[in-house]
Amino acid sequence: MLEKRFEMVKEHHKKTFEDAAINGKMDPQLVSLCRFIASTKQFFTSSSCSGRIVLLKVNAEESKQESAFHRKWHSTVSADEVWNALEEKTKDELWLKQEPLILHIGAESIEGAKKILEIMRKCGIKRGGIMVAKKGKFLLEIVGTQRMSLPVKKDDKILISRGHLEFVVEKANRKLEKNYGTLGKFEEACRKKLS
Amino acid sequence: MLEKRFEMVKEHHKKTFEDAAINGKMDPQLVSLCRFIASTKQFFTSSSCSGRIVLLKVNAEESKQESAFHRKWHSTVSADEVWNALEEKTKDELWLKQEPLILHIGAESIEGAKKILEIMRKCGIKRGGIMVAKKGKFLLEIVGTQRMSLPVKKDDKILISRGHLEFVVEKANRKLEKNYGTLGKFEEACRKKLS
Repeated sequence: MLEKRFEMVKEHHKKTFEDAAINGKMDPQLVSLCRFIASTKQFFTSSSCSGRIVLLKVNAEESKQESAFHRKWHSTVSADEVWNALEEKTKDELWLKQEPLILHIGAESIEGAKKILEIMRKCGIKRGGIMVAKKGKFLLEIVGTQRMSLPVKKDDKILISRGHLEFVVEKANRKLEKNYGTLGKFEEACRKKLS
Repeated sequence: MLEKRFEMVKEHHKKTFEDAAINGKMDPQLVSLCRFIASTKQFFTSSSCSGRIVLLKVNAEESKQESAFHRKWHSTVSADEVWNALEEKTKDELWLKQEPLILHIGAESIEGAKKILEIMRKCGIKRGGIMVAKKGKFLLEIVGTQRMSLPVKKDDKILISRGHLEFVVEKANRKLEKNYGTLGKFEEACRKKLS
């Protein structure tokens, strides 16, 4: 019965993933990892992010709004691209953020979940854990540590100097590359240790 | 036997906490929560942080160095204080960071660990989970989401403009207050739900 339930949940997430991959709605750096995990018997992935650089619109409470991206890059970006995006007319407060990978992985058993924790630590990922622990359904969240976040525009006025932005974008790019390196290591370890 | 081991671990962490509290080495906002958790039968805390604003020295790999704080505040801070600290002669790259609460909580059983996860979610804390799952020893990490991070100085040159820094510090303060509000809620819920 429990096994049946896990299979159904796994099947559901596998379908969601395949649809997203076919329709190009998937972070490209995640497709290969998610496809491998979908091919295992005891694991699945749900909504995940490979890491990115974004210009985010924030409201007064600094919480994310619906579709609040001014721009979103799943790759390194040039300071020119960011600056041009900042120069567009806007009314919201904008924050420049480099966000780390966030992976959601489901496991059938606590032993499986512990295997993921072990892989995570071996790859140098320090943040993450089991968030849901039910018989037949263990959900993990794994979060990278490379990140940056700062306000850059308010009331259609750019707050950051061009020189400072160039330095910030250079650092964000380096952090994002490091983050993708970690993601690559994680996939490699999963392919070795999971089946 | 397992029960005995948990008791010993709990006793060890309780002593570490009491020593830190007596010697003023404890984030003041954490003392009351940690003392309450130490008073329960099934839970303990280990190294935790209430959230803070820091000027951090980073090396080429952007990893934290040993005692790499240029400054550290466990409270809101004025833009003047930060600016003055930036004007001191330095050779390292400096980052201004507002970091969220990070709590490490140990539980004797998975049921206890799940209770902590439930409290966490009720308080609006979205990040965290069970990081170690052994019979008789479950370790959770709970991480707040309010944060900010940016490079502000390099080669003894301040990169951020005074006006931008004022805005950034105002935001960092508001985020830190929100973080402490969440910490307060978490303590209140622990007092209600744990024993």
